[in-house]
Amino acid sequence: MRKEHDFLGELEVSDELYYGVQTLRALENFNITGKRLDRDFIRSMAMVKKACALANMKTGRLDATIGKAIVRAADEIIAGGFVDQFPVDPIQGGAGTSFNMNMNEVLANRGLEILGKPKGSYDIISPNNHCNMAQSTNDSFPTAIKVCAILKSKPLLAALQRLVDELERKAEEYKEILKMGRTHLQDAVPITLGQEMGAYASGVRRGIRRIQSAIAEAHIVNMGATAVGTGLNAEPSYIKDVVDELSAVVGEEFHTADNLIDATNNTDIFADISGGLKVTALVLIKMANDFRLMASGPRCGIGELKLPPRQPGSSIMPGKVNPVIAEVLNQVCYQVVADDLAVTLGVENGQFELNVMEPVIAYNLFNSMCYLKNGVNTFVDKLLIDLQVDREQCQHWLDRSVGIVTALLPHVGYENASMLAKEAYSTGRAIKEIILEKGLLSEADMNHILSPAEMTKPGIAGADILKTHGN
Amino acid sequence: MRKEHDFLGELEVSDELYYGVQTLRALENFNITGKRLDRDFIRSMAMVKKACALANMKTGRLDATIGKAIVRAADEIIAGGFVDQFPVDPIQGGAGTSFNMNMNEVLANRGLEILGKPKGSYDIISPNNHCNMAQSTNDSFPTAIKVCAILKSKPLLAALQRLVDELERKAEEYKEILKMGRTHLQDAVPITLGQEMGAYASGVRRGIRRIQSAIAEAHIVNMGATAVGTGLNAEPSYIKDVVDELSAVVGEEFHTADNLIDATNNTDIFADISGGLKVTALVLIKMANDFRLMASGPRCGIGELKLPPRQPGSSIMPGKVNPVIAEVLNQVCYQVVADDLAVTLGVENGQFELNVMEPVIAYNLFNSMCYLKNGVNTFVDKLLIDLQVDREQCQHWLDRSVGIVTALLPHVGYENASMLAKEAYSTGRAIKEIILEKGLLSEADMNHILSPAEMTKPGIAGADILKTHGN
Amino acid sequence: MRKEHDFLGELEVSDELYYGVQTLRALENFNITGKRLDRDFIRSMAMVKKACALANMKTGRLDATIGKAIVRAADEIIAGGFVDQFPVDPIQGGAGTSFNMNMNEVLANRGLEILGKPKGSYDIISPNNHCNMAQSTNDSFPTAIKVCAILKSKPLLAALQRLVDELERKAEEYKEILKMGRTHLQDAVPITLGQEMGAYASGVRRGIRRIQSAIAEAHIVNMGATAVGTGLNAEPSYIKDVVDELSAVVGEEFHTADNLIDATNNTDIFADISGGLKVTALVLIKMANDFRLMASGPRCGIGELKLPPRQPGSSIMPGKVNPVIAEVLNQVCYQVVADDLAVTLGVENGQFELNVMEPVIAYNLFNSMCYLKNGVNTFVDKLLIDLQVDREQCQHWLDRSVGIVTALLPHVGYENASMLAKEAYSTGRAIKEIILEKGLLSEADMNHILSPAEMTKPGIAGADILKTHGN
Amino acid sequence: MRKEHDFLGELEVSDELYYGVQTLRALENFNITGKRLDRDFIRSMAMVKKACALANMKTGRLDATIGKAIVRAADEIIAGGFVDQFPVDPIQGGAGTSFNMNMNEVLANRGLEILGKPKGSYDIISPNNHCNMAQSTNDSFPTAIKVCAILKSKPLLAALQRLVDELERKAEEYKEILKMGRTHLQDAVPITLGQEMGAYASGVRRGIRRIQSAIAEAHIVNMGATAVGTGLNAEPSYIKDVVDELSAVVGEEFHTADNLIDATNNTDIFADISGGLKVTALVLIKMANDFRLMASGPRCGIGELKLPPRQPGSSIMPGKVNPVIAEVLNQVCYQVVADDLAVTLGVENGQFELNVMEPVIAYNLFNSMCYLKNGVNTFVDKLLIDLQVDREQCQHWLDRSVGIVTALLPHVGYENASMLAKEAYSTGRAIKEIILEKGLLSEADMNHILSPAEMTKPGIAGADILKTHGN
Repeated sequence: MRKEHDFLGELEVSDELYYGVQTLRALENFNITGKRLDRDFIRSMAMVKKACALANMKTGRLDATIGKAIVRAADEIIAGGFVDQFPVDPIQGGAGTSFNMNMNEVLANRGLEILGKPKGSYDIISPNNHCNMAQSTNDSFPTAIKVCAILKSKPLLAALQRLVDELERKAEEYKEILKMGRTHLQDAVPITLGQEMGAYASGVRRGIRRIQSAIAEAHIVNMGATAVGTGLNAEPSYIKDVVDELSAVVGEEFHTADNLIDATNNTDIFADISGGLKVTALVLIKMANDFRLMASGPRCGIGELKLPPRQPGSSIMPGKVNPVIAEVLNQVCYQVVADDLAVTLGVENGQFELNVMEPVIAYNLFNSMCYLKNGVNTFVDKLLIDLQVDREQCQHWLDRSVGIVTALLPHVGYENASMLAKEAYSTGRAIKEIILEKGLLSEADMNHILSPAEMTKPGIAGADILKTHGN
Repeated sequence: MRKEHDFLGELEVSDELYYGVQTLRALENFNITGKRLDRDFIRSMAMVKKACALANMKTGRLDATIGKAIVRAADEIIAGGFVDQFPVDPIQGGAGTSFNMNMNEVLANRGLEILGKPKGSYDIISPNNHCNMAQSTNDSFPTAIKVCAILKSKPLLAALQRLVDELERKAEEYKEILKMGRTHLQDAVPITLGQEMGAYASGVRRGIRRIQSAIAEAHIVNMGATAVGTGLNAEPSYIKDVVDELSAVVGEEFHTADNLIDATNNTDIFADISGGLKVTALVLIKMANDFRLMASGPRCGIGELKLPPRQPGSSIMPGKVNPVIAEVLNQVCYQVVADDLAVTLGVENGQFELNVMEPVIAYNLFNSMCYLKNGVNTFVDKLLIDLQVDREQCQHWLDRSVGIVTALLPHVGYENASMLAKEAYSTGRAIKEIILEKGLLSEADMNHILSPAEMTKPGIAGADILKTHGN
Repeated sequence: MRKEHDFLGELEVSDELYYGVQTLRALENFNITGKRLDRDFIRSMAMVKKACALANMKTGRLDATIGKAIVRAADEIIAGGFVDQFPVDPIQGGAGTSFNMNMNEVLANRGLEILGKPKGSYDIISPNNHCNMAQSTNDSFPTAIKVCAILKSKPLLAALQRLVDELERKAEEYKEILKMGRTHLQDAVPITLGQEMGAYASGVRRGIRRIQSAIAEAHIVNMGATAVGTGLNAEPSYIKDVVDELSAVVGEEFHTADNLIDATNNTDIFADISGGLKVTALVLIKMANDFRLMASGPRCGIGELKLPPRQPGSSIMPGKVNPVIAEVLNQVCYQVVADDLAVTLGVENGQFELNVMEPVIAYNLFNSMCYLKNGVNTFVDKLLIDLQVDREQCQHWLDRSVGIVTALLPHVGYENASMLAKEAYSTGRAIKEIILEKGLLSEADMNHILSPAEMTKPGIAGADILKTHGN
Repeated sequence: MRKEHDFLGELEVSDELYYGVQTLRALENFNITGKRLDRDFIRSMAMVKKACALANMKTGRLDATIGKAIVRAADEIIAGGFVDQFPVDPIQGGAGTSFNMNMNEVLANRGLEILGKPKGSYDIISPNNHCNMAQSTNDSFPTAIKVCAILKSKPLLAALQRLVDELERKAEEYKEILKMGRTHLQDAVPITLGQEMGAYASGVRRGIRRIQSAIAEAHIVNMGATAVGTGLNAEPSYIKDVVDELSAVVGEEFHTADNLIDATNNTDIFADISGGLKVTALVLIKMANDFRLMASGPRCGIGELKLPPRQPGSSIMPGKVNPVIAEVLNQVCYQVVADDLAVTLGVENGQFELNVMEPVIAYNLFNSMCYLKNGVNTFVDKLLIDLQVDREQCQHWLDRSVGIVTALLPHVGYENASMLAKEAYSTGRAIKEIILEKGLLSEADMNHILSPAEMTKPGIAGADILKTHGN
């Protein structure tokens, strides 16, 4: 056991621990979620610290021996080390000071170890004076959130892109499968399943752009703002350097905010990112719902899609299979919408020079990014790739449908079309059968007009026939 | 034109107006929504004022001549008069002071008119000294919200009760209509349409109790709290009297809050009522969605229900009818869920001895109560009463379904049942046909086991056959 | 390794695992949150299973040897065992089937072990036929959520009660501390700090009743509903017995829902509980905000309260201490409000005979209950118990305040009071000083009128003086 | 009275009405909000109709006489005419068909009137065949929402720009006013009031960009999509023309969506706009809260700002003035956050080829845009322009503050600084006084270091002194 103290007094710290007194206080103070910090967030904070140490060495304020030890310790954490040394609760008071100090303490003690010094020798490497040099929680913590959001956006965007790619593959594969289009859940006019898949892809692609656009803004950071954004005790050259070092460390181009005070007390960028996730989730909810509807049945529903069976659906009914993958995507998306409200409430509640609610903001933002990525990948891997279509069922509905009469309007006139619709509804017979029976069109013309190619593109179906026959 | 002043100075007021200088200031200050105050809210505030005048006459602090004039003026407003004299925006700063003073001014000027005095003679009847006697906006405004919520709950609860009654009528009417039960949108085991209607009724009935229970708490008021809840300048006898007078005026039993300070600075009762509306709305959303799904088609969907046509659905397709009434109920319910968030944010943001966000709370609460009542009545009148069932379609799905095999398990054994299911799925044939073909059950036994009565009640379907035949 | 199969095929299961093939499928299907199931939820599901086994033994359908093995296995899980054997993701598709089957498999394999049989001998004890007998995920899963909510409500309600008790202790302790009351963040009239504490207590007490009332409804369960609520394959005597057994197992009185179909497809009870948490959280947010405002400073703010220092607030400023405990309670409460939206979205999205979104509902409900309990206990332990008041600062504000002039109105008249206020504002002098200088009241009378006792209770301050002196 | 019919039958329409049978049905069906359609929305729909008529004349499908009559009628509506002829409820079922048909009917009947024909002569000008030619509600309604959002964005963005301009004016005006910076509501280090105003401006400027960016996407429309997005019955040349005509009519450059199906069934653009409003509202809430905190007092609070008095705050306390303008902005912003949830729920609930919830989406979007514009303009006009600063109070806090000791760290060392802080806290004396008394710095040096210029810019305060004196 070693003894450490802060201005509240002294505490004993077990010698094998890399964290120190302030982390211990956080552990006493905040037992809230029972959850751990996001691992990417730990890595991101280490990246920020590394950049600061490099910049501080450059200005000459930080001794190179100490600086290099801190940098090496940071590198180890960036590489995934010391994860168990960050036990502070993700939901914590103090605007993230506990996590910042947890990181500073681990860096200091690991740095000391690297230098062959005993842990706790803070006169040699101090968590505050060296690891936190020219920083404040108020700049390093929100910057680490931004770095983490950027890191997390990569696999998330990749997952969304995979979804787009697979949907477009389906769009191509199903481009000839004509099916009933539906509005208000009521039979409308035909569409191809490929067109529907293409529309989902198009919607998700917009989600990618939306998230990219919000993430682009996350590259504007407030390093050098220190306590209240004025930059007190952060030299101008350090402020310039730190953002360049951060760019090099993370491999992304960061910029210093034009207005460091605004960038310190406003956290709307996180609501922008979360909002981008939320709106994307809404598009995904609609898509997943459509899949569940199209797969409804198998015998007493729409039954156009056959989702790959992933687990027995019921202990009671032999052979019941449920759309569990679409269902889990729905739930993930509800969670994202709800997390966005947590972010919203956090962002709302800044005051004066700081928003102390940043921990709950970060917690929800990272959860959303993580769950959404997993939910989307699950949807692609476990549902979309092995998707089957019941083409006969698609055709069955079409054949029954009265909606296709709409395509005949220019050919047989509104009166005839209405008469056809009426007879179809009252007798329950198929429109095509009635058309042929009445000799309204030749079978060839009818089949041409009602072909997928004609009915599902802009313009009048069978316009060429119209020209030939006059009508 | 007459001149009126307050401590900010003097303003000219048109002589025909019953409101005065403070209302004019509110009109200058708050041009936000372009909407008018809820009429029940105007009546409710007049009820509060009448009760106060009566209580103040009882303690002797308010001269009877003045008091009676105020009471008569209040009665006229309660009866629906002077609605055009309340032009202040429902979303206003000042915790409702503008509306309170608007009411005080109208009461004073109409009171003066009753006494044959010119408007503006505030030395005779003063908006502040007489109409607001022993009151503060901080007690009269939240109390008026409660009175209004109680008033509005009556037609809302009546609408929900009409819905319950009509659903129960349908439950009885449809009790023999067997249909496919669905879980995960997948075919499950049979159920009767009557059972489904009964379940909706049961869910809505819970909504009624939930709203009643929240409204019961709205009878606890903070009259007498005055500025900060301590009751400064409100005599104890007045505090006792005013709640009795309010009970008499409104015709509901009100009680003084045990803790007037809490009752002044906490507004959670409004979140409770709004929450009750919200949860009820969730049950209604689910119900409306089910109706839309069951009415999907008419040819390419589930098609079990035929909603009464209420308007042409499309200019393109002859005969298209959409479930517009269910759709509007959905939208109303989304609005209620959203309004609840406005109430939530309002309630969250109280500070010290007051919650100044009460106007936005009231605005959303009243909108929700009003829209929900209208949405529910619309659903009953325009959809439920004239609902038709496509019994053949219900039977069609059942006949196709493999799910009914579940009821046969105790009779033919799991092996046979599985074999039946497999054969049905692979051939697309009906289960019943295969059973008879294979001679697994007599037609009579099969029909008994698969009868609505047997398949839709707790227990083993055809348990009597089981006893007879042994198995 | 042992081999297990379901109708999707065969999988190898490591021999030391108690879970089986269906759990393995769930692990493949659902990698969403990286979080574990709530431990109370695991215990609750085991309680449900135990009750079912007991009831099934009673009806004679379940062999006693098997039944007893299942019961003993369940008891071990209830006691906290086998926690590592429940690896399924809390957010899962399939309406909870994965967790239900995970439990059934662990019970079966532990039961087999108890009987001295190898794991996987499902012909002896079957996860489906025995552990899930007369059940469906659709009744056992929502019932387990209810049991868990009831279990979790106990420490939550205890935490809230501790808060109430401690606030009431403070109400008593501070009952003589007069301070400025504030509305609109503007100086109003005096109040005692004890009154404020009492008001917080009163508001929290309402939260306790609200949660208790929602939890009471959670005792109505749908055991026996089976797949769609009709009770198919669940004997009436079992339905009666299982609720009695559950009551005995949990130690709470459960009741079978009047309408099992409604109780299976509607999940509004969870929105009620979550709504109760949410509204309570709103009251706590307001309270925590007040504490932060009253503790603002220490030199440049309101400074009436001194919160116990819990951690160094800043690495830059010597001695800075932040209200971290109040801040963390705020964040917890935002999370609760957000989680309620997830519950809301889940409840909204039921369809027909089931709401498949129950896993995300349960996840958020349990998180909220857990975080709220922890947040409240933290507030009591780390802030409230060691709270200090800066009585001089309270008095300092009062002495400066012009608001106390309100109490003098009946004694010196409106004109004099206004003159006093005006002079105080323009000169910056204290009201008391001016009163004495002008000889408006004797020092004794003034001090009596402006005493805490007089200014903070209902009625006219110094009414006795008024009677004596006439005025 | 004239008679009109649709396929549900015949209704009598009063002769002076320009709307017809379908509007009457909507009035019967939808009595929900009691509110009127947004006037800009009426104008926007008329713009869409005008563009369609022009494009249809261009393709030759629409007779020029009829087309010109429709265009003239549309122009009259665009100019603000016929507002009373649009009585349909903004929250309506049918995905906006009622409003679309209301517009078609008014155009047809006004067009007929222009041609000297009696109203109802739909054989000459038909609401469906002519006014709705090549359109569907499913393209014209969402396009009209987009046009309206664009129109409404102009005064909203202007209001936000005015706010930015005025805040920047204040930033300049107050750039020398040093005040206490606060984090966690606790004294931190100094900042200038000008810097704070500049930070608000910076945050709001981001809001402008955010809304602009979302509004830019609203220029992508789905005209020509018709019923399900495939463009059935809309000629390719019309699809090209209509977007050009719309650009000309509105004066904004519109584009046809790349994927018309996606653009018809996904409504996420509205969630993007609403999300932009919401996040901007969060920044405004924080700003308004800061103003309320800085204006708290006037005697017992922070008291740094003096808001212009806009109305008497209380009937009880002479001279009480409340921050009513900031309060109303807060409430407006809560409404915007809540409206965003309604939009969210609407967007979530699309199905297949359409989102029928568009009316509730539009209603909330327009309300938010309108209220936010009004709230912001009110804040500028009624609060910001006449804002006063209590410079003495700002200085008073600074003089009392211990936080300024931070700036002295490099000059007097950490030990001395800590000692100063400690002495200041324990004695309640001012830091400056103690410094001079102890002779730690000359008065000139101290004043230089603690000058606004030194303490509120990046770097070490008084770095020049440091160089001179060595230290």
